[in-house]
Amino acid sequence: MPNEDISEAKRASGRVTISVDAMGGDMGPATVVAGLAISASKNPDIGYILHGPEDELRPLVKKKQLENRCEIRDAKGVVTMQDKPSQVMRHGKDTSMWSAVEAVRNGDAQACVSCGNTGALMAISMIRLRKIEGINRPAIACLWPSINPGGFNIMLDVGADVRADEDDLMQYALMGASYARNGLDLQRPRIGLLNVGTEENKGRAELKVAHEMIARAAPRADFDFVGFVEGGDIPSDRVDVIVTDGFTGNIALKTGEGTASTIRMLLKEAFQYSPLSRIAALLALTSLQRLKKRIDPRRVNGGVFLGLNGTVVKSHGSSDSLGVASAVHLAFRLAQSGFTERLAARVASATELAQDDTESGQKGKNE
Amino acid sequence: MPNEDISEAKRASGRVTISVDAMGGDMGPATVVAGLAISASKNPDIGYILHGPEDELRPLVKKKQLENRCEIRDAKGVVTMQDKPSQVMRHGKDTSMWSAVEAVRNGDAQACVSCGNTGALMAISMIRLRKIEGINRPAIACLWPSINPGGFNIMLDVGADVRADEDDLMQYALMGASYARNGLDLQRPRIGLLNVGTEENKGRAELKVAHEMIARAAPRADFDFVGFVEGGDIPSDRVDVIVTDGFTGNIALKTGEGTASTIRMLLKEAFQYSPLSRIAALLALTSLQRLKKRIDPRRVNGGVFLGLNGTVVKSHGSSDSLGVASAVHLAFRLAQSGFTERLAARVASATELAQDDTESGQKGKNE
Repeated sequence: MPNEDISEAKRASGRVTISVDAMGGDMGPATVVAGLAISASKNPDIGYILHGPEDELRPLVKKKQLENRCEIRDAKGVVTMQDKPSQVMRHGKDTSMWSAVEAVRNGDAQACVSCGNTGALMAISMIRLRKIEGINRPAIACLWPSINPGGFNIMLDVGADVRADEDDLMQYALMGASYARNGLDLQRPRIGLLNVGTEENKGRAELKVAHEMIARAAPRADFDFVGFVEGGDIPSDRVDVIVTDGFTGNIALKTGEGTASTIRMLLKEAFQYSPLSRIAALLALTSLQRLKKRIDPRRVNGGVFLGLNGTVVKSHGSSDSLGVASAVHLAFRLAQSGFTERLAARVASATELAQDDTESGQKGKNE
Repeated sequence: MPNEDISEAKRASGRVTISVDAMGGDMGPATVVAGLAISASKNPDIGYILHGPEDELRPLVKKKQLENRCEIRDAKGVVTMQDKPSQVMRHGKDTSMWSAVEAVRNGDAQACVSCGNTGALMAISMIRLRKIEGINRPAIACLWPSINPGGFNIMLDVGADVRADEDDLMQYALMGASYARNGLDLQRPRIGLLNVGTEENKGRAELKVAHEMIARAAPRADFDFVGFVEGGDIPSDRVDVIVTDGFTGNIALKTGEGTASTIRMLLKEAFQYSPLSRIAALLALTSLQRLKKRIDPRRVNGGVFLGLNGTVVKSHGSSDSLGVASAVHLAFRLAQSGFTERLAARVASATELAQDDTESGQKGKNE
């Protein structure tokens, strides 16, 4: 069994192994394999386990000369974008997505990447990896291009669940802070709670309660709480982590992406308008490419599922090879930092502290 | 009483009169008066009633030579951005904002413009102008730069109320359609309901119900219902009117503005980066200015309050003179089209139809 030999070799060499779902993205498996080729050429420390129909994947992997870096695990079934999560949970065991998550569950890989159906990926991840003890609702966190020195802010939840009560928002703050430490190297991240105004009396009832809870937790949880932030603060340097429910977060994320791509389109039109503007575009090429790179959604490709016993990165359904490589890089970085274990430890410690608070509160009342 | 004479003259000449709150914006009354000067120079058919401390406004109006176009109504009090709407409702009768709304209520002006505190302006407008019969929650509608031929989409509610149930969303669809007809000259606007996916089974419960209600109302209410739309569709040509609750709409609006202004800043940096890129910026100046104009938030300045017996336009708190002029122009356009009356008629007709539906439905059940 040559595949197992490869896995053995990887483990022995101290490599990080990333489990990759080859199917389910809009662009097909050739794009995913091309993404692995980019990743492999940049980073010698990653090994891959690729999941999907072996007869389809084998020639693609061979063509990119990835045979020594990439194990293939045969899985005939494919989760489509139209499949309902509940169906996939019941009947999806033969799919590449299931197999990709399973490789993290059984310890063969340290993190998983998929371009497929978000709802199905979350459902499979929930039942196979299970929630971290103490976490009620897992969340999806995205990176948002910002004017912060690091170039990115984190926002969560951007779509794991359309609901979130005050306890969930409190947990999102903890998880987002942990992600900022391990994914962005921010030792003391600034957390903001998304609302329609920055005054403490504004917004929905659960937001006011969450505001109090997060403010109380901040000193012990090693983050700064900047209070309520507004939509305009998301790309700003006021904040590193923006906490919100999955409905609002998803709308904000897609609105930001839509606005950026509309402006890119208009900018392109502007430069093609006249001969003079075409010459200008040539002269400004380097500067414009730097800008383009800065706001390129492919560079920040990868929603990370937080709150599970294992790292899962959801790449855009329409990811091209660069997008796939970027999602793999993020998965690698989080796996290498031992993110899942650190997050679990943070949540456990916060839960203990909250219990202490409650107990001493009750004690206080009884006295 | 010279002021009344001016009003008389305006009415006789068929001019539209716009009532303008001079105070409460971040830039002060001089900017508001400068905005009126821009408006006055472009449009001979508008007269103005300006509200605020007369001794402060008189020299500003004189300096801009607007004495013949602009009546001043003395109001000593100012609503600040920090004032709570509930306080203003009880104690705000002496403020310029109150006076500005009052001029619409008593028929001296056909529409009102203010750069002040949104919550207070909505509260005063609600108690003085009253809701249109049949409307439960008034909404604030904004114009959103889009790639539609007209250049704008409409989104509502962007912040009148953080809640909206299915009935409210249904009314927002009717009000938004009416605004699109009268403000953007779209005879058969396309309405979309903002959600986290376009499949009918996605999102919150009230959205699924609202989806059914709006679909049912569409044929009789003279609009096309395109179903659920996502954040990325807001600046698109899939839709003309985006319906959502005031919490989500406000977050989306500010996220879009924040994204656009971040990109503008990065673009400016990109062009200042090297001597070559600076030359490029010069060559592309015309094209870039056209783009800048296209996405300039000042051009679309003005949230319109919908569902009240009178037109109120809320200008950005930080509006400069161009922004004020743009808000006044929007108010003029809506006043001239008899927007309020048309909207009320639409709502009345929809309410009748809904009652017919319910009655025939009950009849059907009884048979």
